Amino acid sequence: MKKKGLFISFEGIDGSGKTTQVKRLGQSLRDKGYELVTVREPGGTPVAEKIRELLLDARNDGICPRTEAFLYAAARAQLVTEVINPALTEGRVVIADRYLDSTLAYQGYGRGLDTRFLEQLNRLAVAGTVPDLTIILDISPVEGMVRRSDSCPDRLEREGLQFQEAVRAGYLSLSRQYPERIKVVDAMQPPEQVYAEIVALVTPFLAQLAEAGV
Amino acid sequence: MKKKGLFISFEGIDGSGKTTQVKRLGQSLRDKGYELVTVREPGGTPVAEKIRELLLDARNDGICPRTEAFLYAAARAQLVTEVINPALTEGRVVIADRYLDSTLAYQGYGRGLDTRFLEQLNRLAVAGTVPDLTIILDISPVEGMVRRSDSCPDRLEREGLQFQEAVRAGYLSLSRQYPERIKVVDAMQPPEQVYAEIVALVTPFLAQLAEAGV
Repeated sequence: MKKKGLFISFEGIDGSGKTTQVKRLGQSLRDKGYELVTVREPGGTPVAEKIRELLLDARNDGICPRTEAFLYAAARAQLVTEVINPALTEGRVVIADRYLDSTLAYQGYGRGLDTRFLEQLNRLAVAGTVPDLTIILDISPVEGMVRRSDSCPDRLEREGLQFQEAVRAGYLSLSRQYPERIKVVDAMQPPEQVYAEIVALVTPFLAQLAEAGV
Repeated sequence: MKKKGLFISFEGIDGSGKTTQVKRLGQSLRDKGYELVTVREPGGTPVAEKIRELLLDARNDGICPRTEAFLYAAARAQLVTEVINPALTEGRVVIADRYLDSTLAYQGYGRGLDTRFLEQLNRLAVAGTVPDLTIILDISPVEGMVRRSDSCPDRLEREGLQFQEAVRAGYLSLSRQYPERIKVVDAMQPPEQVYAEIVALVTPFLAQLAEAGV
């Protein structure tokens, strides 16, 4: 089965505005008539949502970093097989709120897990399904924490600012390793300006999709 | 940290008598003064038990074979890090009711998942912690089903005899691939005889452990 659709992933630390921007871009693309599928990592399928619950459950403090990596990979494999690949095969636009770069940024740069191990795990999990475009919403951890201070922090959020800083640095390192695929948007800017930059990045890919006759 | 203990895993299709034999061998070794740790796959730690619940829950019918493999790997990574490696480092005897060969037998030979993918996943999950001895309790699927007919079958058990036959063939194939590590015991024999053969296989390893001064 040849992939025909367009696959965009959004990345960034907690509070960077991913969810808001994904929602807005998604609505805009739907309004333009694109057949859209949005997915959330970890989650997006009934099985993966259960894995998500397990991961985010603050009671599971005994979870090892390597176990966590395998659980993310499990949720991702389910999402790829059940949702992303079928959608791309049908020529749809898939927008992911977190995907494989989250594993490297959080488990690798954040928790210090071996990045080679994580890259191998990622490769096994996605089995070739890599985004056409990945947009990192870059924000300082302090600003990120301020923006989400009204909600009850989950286990990952409580890890603190130092962890978020390491994750942020990891994302920026990944953007230098994969400059063709990964683009960084300054998410300290007003949401309107952030959105305008996202649209500017996405538009050429939509044009290619149109040329491909989808 | 150098491994000093002894690691034995038991494998076999459902109804082969693993749990009974593991319990009996464990009791015997405890009576002889060995410091013993028994683990069950998938499970054996609070996190892994939750993953086990997710896997065995008959409602999760939408689970993909690849997702399942990652979940087993997650539970295994947790078990290795939290329980098996510390016990072996302390010179204990570890007995596992299922370990890495279950993945290859069930997901590979049983469900037809790529065994190369599974071997890579296993390698990432166990990170070098391979049993010194693996005992396969070999039984015909029909006999296995008769023996466990009094309990409510879980999702994996309902897969039927053809699946169990493929898994059994997978185990036998693995025993030919790794003849040094994997030994097959005919579990169609009376439990007493099965136990005697297990003891005969385990005894030389206990002697080595004694020589090593543990």
